[in-house]
Amino acid sequence: MSYGLLTDFYQLTMAAGYFEAGKARERATFELFIRKLPWNRNFVLVAGLPQIAEYLLNLSFSKEEIDYLRGLPQFEHTHPGFFDMLAELRFTGDLFAVPEGTPMFGGEPMLTVRAPLIEAQIAETYLLSMIGFQSMIATKAARVVKAALGRQVVEFGTRRAHSPEAGVLAGRAGYIGGCAGTSNAAAGMRFDVPVFGTTAHSWIMAFPHERDSFEQLQRLLGESTVYLIDSYDTLEGARRAAALGRPLWGVRLDSGNLTELAPAVRKILDDAGLTDAKIMATGDLNEYKIHELIAARAPIDMFGVGTELSTSADAPSLGVVYKLVELESEESGRRYTFKLSEDKATLPGAKQVFRFADHDVLGRSTECLGCTGVERSPAEALLRPVMLGGKLIEPLPSTNEARHHAADCLAMLPAPCHSLFESHAWRVELSSELKSLTERVQQEAS
Amino acid sequence: MSYGLLTDFYQLTMAAGYFEAGKARERATFELFIRKLPWNRNFVLVAGLPQIAEYLLNLSFSKEEIDYLRGLPQFEHTHPGFFDMLAELRFTGDLFAVPEGTPMFGGEPMLTVRAPLIEAQIAETYLLSMIGFQSMIATKAARVVKAALGRQVVEFGTRRAHSPEAGVLAGRAGYIGGCAGTSNAAAGMRFDVPVFGTTAHSWIMAFPHERDSFEQLQRLLGESTVYLIDSYDTLEGARRAAALGRPLWGVRLDSGNLTELAPAVRKILDDAGLTDAKIMATGDLNEYKIHELIAARAPIDMFGVGTELSTSADAPSLGVVYKLVELESEESGRRYTFKLSEDKATLPGAKQVFRFADHDVLGRSTECLGCTGVERSPAEALLRPVMLGGKLIEPLPSTNEARHHAADCLAMLPAPCHSLFESHAWRVELSSELKSLTERVQQEAS
Repeated sequence: MSYGLLTDFYQLTMAAGYFEAGKARERATFELFIRKLPWNRNFVLVAGLPQIAEYLLNLSFSKEEIDYLRGLPQFEHTHPGFFDMLAELRFTGDLFAVPEGTPMFGGEPMLTVRAPLIEAQIAETYLLSMIGFQSMIATKAARVVKAALGRQVVEFGTRRAHSPEAGVLAGRAGYIGGCAGTSNAAAGMRFDVPVFGTTAHSWIMAFPHERDSFEQLQRLLGESTVYLIDSYDTLEGARRAAALGRPLWGVRLDSGNLTELAPAVRKILDDAGLTDAKIMATGDLNEYKIHELIAARAPIDMFGVGTELSTSADAPSLGVVYKLVELESEESGRRYTFKLSEDKATLPGAKQVFRFADHDVLGRSTECLGCTGVERSPAEALLRPVMLGGKLIEPLPSTNEARHHAADCLAMLPAPCHSLFESHAWRVELSSELKSLTERVQQEAS
Repeated sequence: MSYGLLTDFYQLTMAAGYFEAGKARERATFELFIRKLPWNRNFVLVAGLPQIAEYLLNLSFSKEEIDYLRGLPQFEHTHPGFFDMLAELRFTGDLFAVPEGTPMFGGEPMLTVRAPLIEAQIAETYLLSMIGFQSMIATKAARVVKAALGRQVVEFGTRRAHSPEAGVLAGRAGYIGGCAGTSNAAAGMRFDVPVFGTTAHSWIMAFPHERDSFEQLQRLLGESTVYLIDSYDTLEGARRAAALGRPLWGVRLDSGNLTELAPAVRKILDDAGLTDAKIMATGDLNEYKIHELIAARAPIDMFGVGTELSTSADAPSLGVVYKLVELESEESGRRYTFKLSEDKATLPGAKQVFRFADHDVLGRSTECLGCTGVERSPAEALLRPVMLGGKLIEPLPSTNEARHHAADCLAMLPAPCHSLFESHAWRVELSSELKSLTERVQQEAS
């Protein structure tokens, strides 16, 4: 598998243009960030880092890909040297990133890429879609998990994810965001995420009678048995499950009015002495519905969340962008870049995010604001080197470590940030050095 | 690459259960359909067929995957014969499908899988996510293209697609839905979709002055030159582009109030004698905004649509389901299956969709309603064999052929189906044979 063409075509026309303008090897600094928080989100949990490291470590163009490009009308007049260069292209630059699982806010770089212009440019598209998608899902998962108030949440959305690969990545990102696991078997194997799931309605329907399907399941799974009880009549299904007794884990409800059904099913289980049998609920759930179910005291022990989680249905895209902030060449020295487009303006120069106890300061990458050892007020510099000269400086944390980091970071955020509704409780300031640079660069340009 | 684990874990626990219950080889018929049309959609264009054929032709479990499963606590007590069977598993069944690009409606099977129960069950998850995603995007594209009233629409959404692979597939599906092409280079190469795109803001910012970047672009691209004019000041950018004159294709606007900017930019180009230079618009567009821009007579010649198209933002999932409708074994003969879950009831028995000039009839697969040669009223039976006994019966149509088929089918739909808003203008009836079967089977079960 070659990664070369997993990019927007204009990255390649620009690459050809940089080559012909003698700019291919100028040293560029790009920052990846969200302009502002998505609808109804008070933070974004960063996820997807090992996958972009994998991409950068393996970025290259196969002979077939280069032949394809060479045959396109857009490249008819392109200098053949460009294709020779593409055949040799590898990522030789530096990657700085905040650790996976870190909550970030509008305007704050999550990643910085410093590399020859052409390499950094081609990488843009893959980086945006990988970080954008996984961060969006990790964020959604954190909201759902918060709403569940300690009850387990499992990611069940593979079938509605935007492609099979998105399903695998949603399983990973959901786990980082706090889910107990996923239904996606490949995510389980690749990323060591616990896998969940027992049976679908087809299992029930594959037997002539619901009772037969329940008996067979109990023989198969013993204490892991979860009876899916809504295929024909939910309360009748609950009575059948209760009649079979132990061993069982519990039952699953997948349709109907859960606020009414859950207590009725609970009573049936309790009356049969199965007070430790659990109730799992699934079926178009999200953080808002879970919040309501818990407020209505529905006796549900575990939630399976599918479509709404794996598509982040109420905010199905994350407005990640990747902007050139510096460009350096031997002839012209360093130049700070920015744009002024309406509602899309960007700030010049490489940056660092300094996290204090109750706010962030966005400063220049060369600043040291409240760094460890400085007495005044301690802050953490969030962007750290991940790759230097095209190589990983150390192995990345595991998916499970990223999940723990996310939990630790989320525990530090003030309560309003955890609201299911918009609160924008976290303050992001600009350092005076960054403000000065911005003013100076804009004045020079005007 | 092995496809085995690209599935929900419960498919594998069910597979183990079918194996232990001696049901693995019972012949199952599953149908894939949407329960009802998504929000604000009057049809769904089916897409993704070659990718699921590829999956079914190559479905298998690697040794590593089987070792992973064997090590899970859920499979601790599973009969070792199950894993031996998994190691040998291939898809040996039949696939029936409607041609790619066919518009379908609620309750109508898009695919039918008839295969040994265990094979058909494991395939469910991949089929749902692949057909669901591509069909959702092809449908969205058809809406955007319709709104553009003959102006070209290009799919530009890779960076916001849900994973890099989703970006490639969105480029393919968007093209089937009527887009002129995509920004996704891999979709261009793999599926022969025309690729579009010239430069981003980073190109402009990579030069000390906007003018330098424009001059260099014109030298590079000649008549394909598209100046991106909104980096600093849109009208100033337009004047710079106009001053450079020919050769050029035109300019691109990516921010600001397009209703006001487009006429002003048009005037600048016209005043410079560049009446044939074109204006392309991009930036968070969708079918609704394009409809408004055209209604306001904004002089825009081409639209690039990104995030909203590649995520189907106003309806970001398609409620595809995959339901067991028949099960047959040598001992028990054939049994028709269904479920009654609230709002999620399904109809028993394998079906066929008969398309008449102004409505569909959903009948049993054994019926022949108005088939070719029958005088009364001609209808087309939409579900056709694609794979038999695990093999393709003939090569599938190309992406471009699917695109033409979609255009032909869409041209046959009545005007209300093309509304951007909900009209549900197409009638779907049940045949009397299907109604009888449903009543009989439900009575027998109660």
